Amino acid sequence: MKISELSATTGVPVPTIKYYLRERLLPEGERSSPSQASYGEPHVKRLGVIRALVASGVSIAEVHRVLETLDNPPESAHLLLGSAHAAITSSVDEPLDLTLAEEVVAGLGWKPGLCDDAVLHAVARALDGLRSAGFEVPREVMPIYLRGMREIADAEIAGVPTSSPEAAVEYVVLGSALVEPLLLALRRVAQQIASAERFGGGATLR
Amino acid sequence: MKISELSATTGVPVPTIKYYLRERLLPEGERSSPSQASYGEPHVKRLGVIRALVASGVSIAEVHRVLETLDNPPESAHLLLGSAHAAITSSVDEPLDLTLAEEVVAGLGWKPGLCDDAVLHAVARALDGLRSAGFEVPREVMPIYLRGMREIADAEIAGVPTSSPEAAVEYVVLGSALVEPLLLALRRVAQQIASAERFGGGATLR
Repeated sequence: MKISELSATTGVPVPTIKYYLRERLLPEGERSSPSQASYGEPHVKRLGVIRALVASGVSIAEVHRVLETLDNPPESAHLLLGSAHAAITSSVDEPLDLTLAEEVVAGLGWKPGLCDDAVLHAVARALDGLRSAGFEVPREVMPIYLRGMREIADAEIAGVPTSSPEAAVEYVVLGSALVEPLLLALRRVAQQIASAERFGGGATLR
Repeated sequence: MKISELSATTGVPVPTIKYYLRERLLPEGERSSPSQASYGEPHVKRLGVIRALVASGVSIAEVHRVLETLDNPPESAHLLLGSAHAAITSSVDEPLDLTLAEEVVAGLGWKPGLCDDAVLHAVARALDGLRSAGFEVPREVMPIYLRGMREIADAEIAGVPTSSPEAAVEYVVLGSALVEPLLLALRRVAQQIASAERFGGGATLR
């Protein structure tokens, strides 16, 4: 199909598609004449992936790394997860004290060497942000965070499809980034429901 | 203290402080001379809050709305949560089919009117992103997401401090935005641990 049809099929404007082509997020179409190229199903699919990643707040540089991991997956399913996380976790560029983070993630079953530095740094940065805002997670809430996230991760890892390596790659790489907005949105809905039940006295927000 | 001392105390560069002053995120200091102003503890505290919000990906416009909610809290704790969410949820600007979202959040205990449109739209947008990337949450994983988020929300709402209205406001408004990076980072650590246990065969990523 022509670029205009690719745009109509995917709902992505032609200038945006051209931008993705220039940024090499989308592979070139097959040249059908010096000024025209032809696009196919793989382009439609890849545009869907790019659009979903961008919509969930993933930067263009990170989309690049996610797509690279999709195209050149590492050999083992476990290393795959590390690559997926590396693609969407900002690199370690500041010296952070990891003591508190290590203490917290011990509640997830963490021991030294069981996860890479980048995600441990992400925990440390998050804890640092809370501290600098003067916010403290209540003592009785933190264990619920840990238990909830461990149960979610166990279910997710158990759900990695074994039908084909490609399916496993897609699941792990996209699942890491794309499920985040869903979880955050579900938390807000659940907070409003819990709040309505506790404080609302039958009042509704809608 | 002078602006240079405020900078030294908080670690926020002077030009950034001036930017926050111009954007009216930070209240003016007390004029001590025509060219100098004096800043105090409230400025230190507010800078910590702004820095933490910005670091966790909240936009300047959203920081504005969060601070406004902190300064002018609504009367009831329940409405407060709605305001906090409104401040950090992008407004409803696209027509989205909410049927699937309503079906999903029914698993959280949702009934019509129990949460506002903005958070329901956030769920719909997240589901839409997954769909357009061709990603499907496995049938057995979604209930774990719902249960995890409901348990977390229940614990968070039960933990709203009742010592003072100010404490409740801070907890709800900051907790909504600032805990998100912590939860996402904990999920990634938990995924790596679960993956190491399932696929790693003793291999470590570190």
